Amino acid sequence: MKHLYDIKQLNAEQLNHLFSLADKIKTTAVTETKKWLAGKTAMALFFENSTRTLMSFQLAAQRLGMDFCALNIAHSSAQKGETLKDTLFTLNAMQSDAFIIRHSENHTQKQAAKWLGDQASVINAGDGTNQHPTQGLLDLYTIREHKKDFSQLKVAIIGDIKHSRVAGSLVDGLHILGNNNTWIYAPDELLPASTTARKAENMKQALSDADVVVMLRIQKERISQIDAEVLDHWHDNYGLNENNLEWAKKDAIVMHPGPMNRGVEISSAVADGPQSVILEQVRNGVLMRSALLYQLLSD
Amino acid sequence: MKHLYDIKQLNAEQLNHLFSLADKIKTTAVTETKKWLAGKTAMALFFENSTRTLMSFQLAAQRLGMDFCALNIAHSSAQKGETLKDTLFTLNAMQSDAFIIRHSENHTQKQAAKWLGDQASVINAGDGTNQHPTQGLLDLYTIREHKKDFSQLKVAIIGDIKHSRVAGSLVDGLHILGNNNTWIYAPDELLPASTTARKAENMKQALSDADVVVMLRIQKERISQIDAEVLDHWHDNYGLNENNLEWAKKDAIVMHPGPMNRGVEISSAVADGPQSVILEQVRNGVLMRSALLYQLLSD
Amino acid sequence: MKHLYDIKQLNAEQLNHLFSLADKIKTTAVTETKKWLAGKTAMALFFENSTRTLMSFQLAAQRLGMDFCALNIAHSSAQKGETLKDTLFTLNAMQSDAFIIRHSENHTQKQAAKWLGDQASVINAGDGTNQHPTQGLLDLYTIREHKKDFSQLKVAIIGDIKHSRVAGSLVDGLHILGNNNTWIYAPDELLPASTTARKAENMKQALSDADVVVMLRIQKERISQIDAEVLDHWHDNYGLNENNLEWAKKDAIVMHPGPMNRGVEISSAVADGPQSVILEQVRNGVLMRSALLYQLLSD
Repeated sequence: MKHLYDIKQLNAEQLNHLFSLADKIKTTAVTETKKWLAGKTAMALFFENSTRTLMSFQLAAQRLGMDFCALNIAHSSAQKGETLKDTLFTLNAMQSDAFIIRHSENHTQKQAAKWLGDQASVINAGDGTNQHPTQGLLDLYTIREHKKDFSQLKVAIIGDIKHSRVAGSLVDGLHILGNNNTWIYAPDELLPASTTARKAENMKQALSDADVVVMLRIQKERISQIDAEVLDHWHDNYGLNENNLEWAKKDAIVMHPGPMNRGVEISSAVADGPQSVILEQVRNGVLMRSALLYQLLSD
Repeated sequence: MKHLYDIKQLNAEQLNHLFSLADKIKTTAVTETKKWLAGKTAMALFFENSTRTLMSFQLAAQRLGMDFCALNIAHSSAQKGETLKDTLFTLNAMQSDAFIIRHSENHTQKQAAKWLGDQASVINAGDGTNQHPTQGLLDLYTIREHKKDFSQLKVAIIGDIKHSRVAGSLVDGLHILGNNNTWIYAPDELLPASTTARKAENMKQALSDADVVVMLRIQKERISQIDAEVLDHWHDNYGLNENNLEWAKKDAIVMHPGPMNRGVEISSAVADGPQSVILEQVRNGVLMRSALLYQLLSD
Repeated sequence: MKHLYDIKQLNAEQLNHLFSLADKIKTTAVTETKKWLAGKTAMALFFENSTRTLMSFQLAAQRLGMDFCALNIAHSSAQKGETLKDTLFTLNAMQSDAFIIRHSENHTQKQAAKWLGDQASVINAGDGTNQHPTQGLLDLYTIREHKKDFSQLKVAIIGDIKHSRVAGSLVDGLHILGNNNTWIYAPDELLPASTTARKAENMKQALSDADVVVMLRIQKERISQIDAEVLDHWHDNYGLNENNLEWAKKDAIVMHPGPMNRGVEISSAVADGPQSVILEQVRNGVLMRSALLYQLLSD
């Protein structure tokens, strides 16, 4: 495997191999892991800003001893009319080993991977409303730390599923790992046309006996098509709090990709409560991205 | 000690220990010091821009072999409504060892240190009008290079003392090191309500027989409350030049935290003259910040 | 040699020595070259944006194990009224070994080199319409890879020669290496007042039997003095395509400093065709900049 643009490229065995790699990186001294990809270079091309994801990739690359360059896209030739293909081939000629790309258009990274072939790796750090495979990987890895057998879990994903590449990659990943009990819940306008997940009728059906609850960020800029009134009452109808979390199992874990709108999709009591694994997700993000870089780039 | 948000956290012994550490770093090969904190990471969160201070911290961290990440705050979730606490805990979950924070609100870093406890170090790179402890450290270290016994010195600090965190940390540091002969001079509106320093009546009283003269930058955006006319004649009344410098001792040193307004608070002849140690301050800034990072982060 | 602000500082022997150094870097493992300048620091001060050139220098420095800091000029004191001289001396006091400067005013780097003397190296990454010596070096190195003896070549350079520092450095470099058969072609308004190159009457005279064809980027912001109509028909009169390239030798190579305006100064068929060495130029840029850094900074 040379590129990762869609989590569906991976089968269960490959996913589990990446999880084991992350386990190994976690227990290896940084001074040791810094030798693993020393002398290799990763370049980040973020056409959409995300300091959080960029930092996570930077730390993941540095942990393996890689050089890391984040391009200032706002000032690059890419914004002055140069095509993405020319930008990519130019940077590739500088001998970068990996391109970590975030882009507002679906499938940009798949196209980039096709252009570059085996010359350099492309990693998708989010494409439009389609995929965010490294977020999917870290979510799955976090669930695995707490819940072992994926096929026996009930997972509830609540929020704007339709526009969420986070949800897209997670639903696909759960399906690959044999889970047939993934539920999604949102206003009808924010549900995807097709999905391997089951659609819940209400919060109670989604949350009841859930082992894992994943709350999605409301991205106000992406959901212009729904009523302001629905947004105003979002927490009452689609938010997680101490009351409705009781429908889930006692040992259910609560996840959120961040950054959170506290009091909107999730109450502070739950976000900071004992069932929350939100900061573990962040920590695991660095580990999983290191694992992926190592998998794609080690000789 | 885990954090440094206020120079008053340090006693004389601790200050002298930091100075000795800086001495040691100065005389040790960079290829050697790069092993001291290899594998550790510092993140800079500058909510106020300062390329100069940021560079100084970056070089200080790299000199010890640390990875250094400067967050693009303008594009971060912190600016999109995420609370500073959530931003900090998120970055902390990525396993940063130190957070170097510059913020326009007083006491932000003290609060951050309280939140993080012993999970990671917080270093204050300037908070509002309160403290800039690493600037204080480098100023004291520079004085020590030239003047040894702090208790025997007359120090004059001239300019906008009230809004200057540089002056705040320096006055405190001198007091801790046993100096009772620190004088400040400014228009009444720019003097602090309370201080351990003595207030001079005029330039002559402040400068006469001084061993150390510290000129502060006029920050026009911060001093809206004083008359334009006072600003227009600033150099005549509060500026240092070859004439009034003669009131000080022959071997007095002249300091300025930079960047300078030449011809306003200081004349070019003095800034570039034989008594100026302004560029030594810059060099010492990197050394003292390395010393501090080592003190806070070495196992 | 301590600085490089103008390719005319170098004689043929020195140029060939730099080419040999680049050859050596190309065939040496990165884990080895990373030891060559470990512990040294380069700072980039780009007063004009160029992500491409900045990346190239960053990768070149990292390949030799250097620390690399790119200053955020837009937020630096330099933009708040501090003089370039004060900015430079401040950064120099932080013990940077090299300053890589891009500036819109001609001769800025020569002045900077004069100020710094032997305290630190200055490398010109482009000054106004004057010189871009590292681009000249990589262009010459690329020609040398394909064409060996410079004195026997016909070289055609086409486009806005007058405002092109790329052309300036290349014409000078070819002259130093003994080439007397360098031709330039452009509308009269875009020809330089004096040059060592020959002026062609038309595309045919420029291209006929050429061994090397260099197409320059049309920088619309720089050529306000020529008619819009000339620009509209640029490709017809001054563009390279499969038809007029036939006038050149069968084994002629085609060069462009990038980023390209496809369909304007060069057709896509030629840019992506078998004679194009445009991506080799990019790759060689990193190598030549490494060679230069090593030449200027190794003890």
